[in-house]
Amino acid sequence: MSSFAEPISKLIRELMRMPTVGPKTAQRLAFHILFSSAEEARQLSDAISEVKEKIHPCRRCFNLTDTDLCSICRDERRDSRLLCVVSDPRDIAALERTGEFKGRYHVLGGKLSPMEGVGPAELKIQELLERIRKEEIKEVIVATDPDISGEATAMYLSKVIKPLGAKISRLAYGLPIGANIEYADEVTLARAVEGRREI
Amino acid sequence: MSSFAEPISKLIRELMRMPTVGPKTAQRLAFHILFSSAEEARQLSDAISEVKEKIHPCRRCFNLTDTDLCSICRDERRDSRLLCVVSDPRDIAALERTGEFKGRYHVLGGKLSPMEGVGPAELKIQELLERIRKEEIKEVIVATDPDISGEATAMYLSKVIKPLGAKISRLAYGLPIGANIEYADEVTLARAVEGRREI
Repeated sequence: MSSFAEPISKLIRELMRMPTVGPKTAQRLAFHILFSSAEEARQLSDAISEVKEKIHPCRRCFNLTDTDLCSICRDERRDSRLLCVVSDPRDIAALERTGEFKGRYHVLGGKLSPMEGVGPAELKIQELLERIRKEEIKEVIVATDPDISGEATAMYLSKVIKPLGAKISRLAYGLPIGANIEYADEVTLARAVEGRREI
Repeated sequence: MSSFAEPISKLIRELMRMPTVGPKTAQRLAFHILFSSAEEARQLSDAISEVKEKIHPCRRCFNLTDTDLCSICRDERRDSRLLCVVSDPRDIAALERTGEFKGRYHVLGGKLSPMEGVGPAELKIQELLERIRKEEIKEVIVATDPDISGEATAMYLSKVIKPLGAKISRLAYGLPIGANIEYADEVTLARAVEGRREI
């Protein structure tokens, strides 16, 4: 028998379902909630319900949104003929933080992975090809992860997009800023040599 | 402008109010909730509301409970004349996990700390003295933290409890199990020598 009253044990169990939250963290969070104001706890509980009720994929790009079209698709100042393809909505947030990209996005909803049963039909690839045609996209930047399935996805996309006449590019590979050449893995270093640029 | 839809940003902000949860963890937790089933998210949100609605201090010992008397106060098998005094309800859970203590508890609700304006009147000390008299307590074990304010609290309690005729003891100080003598701090080591036991 746990020595906590059942509502506390229940909250700890629910919190422990979350990633990186073990028993000690769950207990710390539960007591934080318990000792916070009723208002603060209500806001957290409401935020959880609200996110489940209101968030759904954008009708056009499949980014997560609480409106019919997401804020990026609605933004008229963005270049409507430049498209960045990502596998997950979280990648959009990472790219937006750089402030470098001024086009729009398309979320595939995953990466090609035959081992896990994810083929082209499981991803929003048909929708992507339709957009490229309909929105007269000039350039598609493929921003899938630099791992095996991300690479496979990029290869597949280049094969199906090229016939449509759009330019297709891939994020640059190379050394991360602040890295040591001495400790860089050989694949990254080989790609950095291969992708060298004149200065 | 954050590139997340407002309900997601709001959930991330609410999660970030919790201890040890920074922006990256909050984002990871928010997306976990977003991608979990509606049922799972509802259970978490309900558990948060419920803990705030149902949990209050036990009428007798000030442990947290969802009933009038907490489960330990209601347990007839526990030694009703042995009392362990703790500063926080969480300490009860830690002591219960040891399975060593078979008496009941009394939660002070803090430690004496004149610097922070916590005097005897701010803690449940009058209630403790009344219990010692009324419940004919034989022994009081003071289990406050081994730090300055925990020590001050223990000293104060021994002063006010002794006249009532109850035996009063303090948790043993010494080396934690698994520690290295070489790396033990000198205060702990001095206390371990002082409190040595014949073998």
